[in-house]
Amino acid sequence: MPDAAKQRAHASRGGGRAGHAKRRAAADTVRSPAIITRKIPTYELLGEEALNRIEAHADWILKEVGIEFRGDEEALTLFRRAGAEVTGERVRCEPGLAASLCATAPASFRMEARDPANAIVLGGDHVVLMPSYGPPFVSDLDGGRRYATLEDFRNIVKLTYMSPFLNHSGGTVCEPVDVPVNKRHLDMVYAHLRYSTKPFMGAVTAPERAEDSIEMARIVFGAGYMQKNCVIQGNINVNSPLVYDDVMTGALKAYARANQSCVISPFILGGAMGPVTQPALLAQSHAEAMAGIALSQLVRKGSPMVYGNFLTTMNLKTGAPTFGTPEANLSTFAIGQLCRRLGLPLRCGGQLCASKVADGQAMQEAANSMLTGVLAGSNFIFHSAGWLEGGLTLGYEKFVMDIDHCGMMLKMMCGLEIDDNSLAADAFLENQPGDNFFGTAHTLRNFETANYMSNLADTSSFEQWSEAGSLTMEQRANERWKTMLSAYEAPPIDAGVDEALLDFIARRKQSMPDRWY
Amino acid sequence: MPDAAKQRAHASRGGGRAGHAKRRAAADTVRSPAIITRKIPTYELLGEEALNRIEAHADWILKEVGIEFRGDEEALTLFRRAGAEVTGERVRCEPGLAASLCATAPASFRMEARDPANAIVLGGDHVVLMPSYGPPFVSDLDGGRRYATLEDFRNIVKLTYMSPFLNHSGGTVCEPVDVPVNKRHLDMVYAHLRYSTKPFMGAVTAPERAEDSIEMARIVFGAGYMQKNCVIQGNINVNSPLVYDDVMTGALKAYARANQSCVISPFILGGAMGPVTQPALLAQSHAEAMAGIALSQLVRKGSPMVYGNFLTTMNLKTGAPTFGTPEANLSTFAIGQLCRRLGLPLRCGGQLCASKVADGQAMQEAANSMLTGVLAGSNFIFHSAGWLEGGLTLGYEKFVMDIDHCGMMLKMMCGLEIDDNSLAADAFLENQPGDNFFGTAHTLRNFETANYMSNLADTSSFEQWSEAGSLTMEQRANERWKTMLSAYEAPPIDAGVDEALLDFIARRKQSMPDRWY
Repeated sequence: MPDAAKQRAHASRGGGRAGHAKRRAAADTVRSPAIITRKIPTYELLGEEALNRIEAHADWILKEVGIEFRGDEEALTLFRRAGAEVTGERVRCEPGLAASLCATAPASFRMEARDPANAIVLGGDHVVLMPSYGPPFVSDLDGGRRYATLEDFRNIVKLTYMSPFLNHSGGTVCEPVDVPVNKRHLDMVYAHLRYSTKPFMGAVTAPERAEDSIEMARIVFGAGYMQKNCVIQGNINVNSPLVYDDVMTGALKAYARANQSCVISPFILGGAMGPVTQPALLAQSHAEAMAGIALSQLVRKGSPMVYGNFLTTMNLKTGAPTFGTPEANLSTFAIGQLCRRLGLPLRCGGQLCASKVADGQAMQEAANSMLTGVLAGSNFIFHSAGWLEGGLTLGYEKFVMDIDHCGMMLKMMCGLEIDDNSLAADAFLENQPGDNFFGTAHTLRNFETANYMSNLADTSSFEQWSEAGSLTMEQRANERWKTMLSAYEAPPIDAGVDEALLDFIARRKQSMPDRWY
Repeated sequence: MPDAAKQRAHASRGGGRAGHAKRRAAADTVRSPAIITRKIPTYELLGEEALNRIEAHADWILKEVGIEFRGDEEALTLFRRAGAEVTGERVRCEPGLAASLCATAPASFRMEARDPANAIVLGGDHVVLMPSYGPPFVSDLDGGRRYATLEDFRNIVKLTYMSPFLNHSGGTVCEPVDVPVNKRHLDMVYAHLRYSTKPFMGAVTAPERAEDSIEMARIVFGAGYMQKNCVIQGNINVNSPLVYDDVMTGALKAYARANQSCVISPFILGGAMGPVTQPALLAQSHAEAMAGIALSQLVRKGSPMVYGNFLTTMNLKTGAPTFGTPEANLSTFAIGQLCRRLGLPLRCGGQLCASKVADGQAMQEAANSMLTGVLAGSNFIFHSAGWLEGGLTLGYEKFVMDIDHCGMMLKMMCGLEIDDNSLAADAFLENQPGDNFFGTAHTLRNFETANYMSNLADTSSFEQWSEAGSLTMEQRANERWKTMLSAYEAPPIDAGVDEALLDFIARRKQSMPDRWY
């Protein structure tokens, strides 16, 4: 097994051609550092009393209703030993127990990357953006909507690698449905490791697939290194309401045992997997997240976890999920406060929408969802790019429209710096009232860095825009993602490591028959 | 001149057919009260020290550079008497003078409407939304982009009247360019008074047009009534940087003398009408707004003013204005804080965009601009509906897409009510873990009011959406505004009042030759 440090050094050193390609494709944007720091305050929606009441209600749920851990004797035993009341598969906790079990999870942690320059920090004031997770379909303006393939998966990994605004490669960026269900995790993890050098997620769809994912990470980073460093993550969706199944706890335990990270995400559409009113959902989501994080700490104290949530609304006439709604905005703000009081890294937000195409609806919903996620203090924003149709589809055009908006959000998070230069006394003295500021020394000194430059927003005149074909943003985005993809060059990888990865995959694939369900 | 109270009673009484039409067209939305209260906190971007520094910088601008009041001897005299240093047309103030002159303007005030039920409050925690102001063009999917006409103007007044989410009829909702420049204000004010019963704005393009507008309001409300009640407003755009011209101060003085309201709006694209860095723009905008409000109070102490701003960015390669940008978002938050420290009603936000059509760009930019305006604590949001192409065009489709988003923002401003019902203990006890909440008593009790119901967002399945023609939100909106317009019925008006208004208009039109510039 190769030495992890050497591998990572190699990956970062071989910048030559790949570095050039990246610079070329991103020439019209500003490269963000991988470790992004939010310099603006969070939005505090609720007061102390309201937060106390929601927390107390979460504790009431955990005591009076409890949470079921189905098919996982080990989890039930761990909770029993920790002082919970376990009846059958139901775990009930006295008020305060769940929160106290969460206390050993770190408030923030570092996640290493194949290129050390791409390491991130999850928690504190740091912000991590990753692409969509889970869509079985992809769409673009040329081919329409279709099942996603491994080629699509690789494309999204490549586009994410090239984006200066996504600092996490994601997990199941789309479902490669052309690969058997029980083998696709191997190809997905390989794609993240081979075509990107950013942090990534492994499989959670079965405990052994989680173990495979961790094993592949060990080939690259080294087993010893991973005892002390987090390099891979699992996304654990709770079977809300108030249930964890053994597939999810199996994956959770695998990652926690390996001292790797999980994101514990209650998944609640109000009215279906929880009550229809937001305060109740907040308490439920808080209870479910605490229960999962508590389990991780019972498996391995100090294992690095993220407090997740996926709280949204439904069209209550039809039962269809809805996104970027006023109710979801409010819950996003509130869940951020609940998480901060627990002192854990927060996942929420994302460019969510119900629209099938990257139209006005898509971007209105996505902008609401993303902006509230940012102001809520999210440390980790899933679905930052590409999400369409309630997560069923990843749209290529939406993907590049979203990363442009991610760039805007990152610029906004830099806040306002109030200093002599930004107050521009010299410009006011250079000009007379009525004079324009185009040519002042201050403008010339600052114009290149003052504003975020969108590469998709059209700000030309109506006449220029008409002459250029009256294109919508979606149409302009169609060209953009193709240009990006054509400029992609794979980062280097040590030949021995690559061979070891491919070898591992071949052996695992040979060891079992294809399964398509 | 008819008695104002009688007229207003009459206008509100005659609800019959118009009331029915309104209910029918708005049947899928929730009617908001005219006086809207924000129940969520404002977002506080900057700390005390930063705000102090920007305020001090505004005072520095007012003292060291000063503001020019061009062609208005009366304004210069008023400032001189108030203690300012006046040199030529330049007014310079010692630190603190401008703010102290603003102190007599009310922190909030009521604005009466032809239908008393449509009266609004500007200031405090109250929020007023009005349509776009000023576009010379309109566009829709059928006819494309074209010069606006008086018919378009009336259409927008009618759509605004019908919307449950716009509580102000606006001013120059679009420029009726088929009417001579020196006469169109008469038709515009008539349209607001005849086709709506919501508060509105009069002309500011010449002092005598402001006087005409006020005179028409007197025909409806009564001169005595208007001595003590605000029923009409003027929108005063500052000739930034640091200039007020005599057209604007003439209109400002006319409204202030009549104890009517003005919105004082510095108009600054960073890099053109001010420096390229946001903190400098904030200080400049604050200085300009204070100077205008100070003048209003010198003309008539206590006249009701709104602290406005229009602060946005440019594409610094081309000079084109840009909207909903990260820098504009930040300045919106900060200007809200500066205004609150002055204790005046705040205007900002709006569904601004540079896009030519109601596509993804339009709604992404508009959502950013609107949501930050709401969280900044805006009391008065101009351009809440219809704005395209940097304000050059009012789009019919964008208009109805925007009012849907206004509805979402109003719902969001209601905040979260944390009480026994919203915490839903009974629902958690009724269910077992894993059960869905569709049929719980709590869901059935709350599902009709829990969520805002968009009338334009498509949340159906991909198959349903495809069968319905794969329409974008913009295409669905095309049908929506036509349906609304066809359901419009004019509110009743006293025949004598109507005759007096038409008579006044005819006399004024006859008194002068047409002017087309």
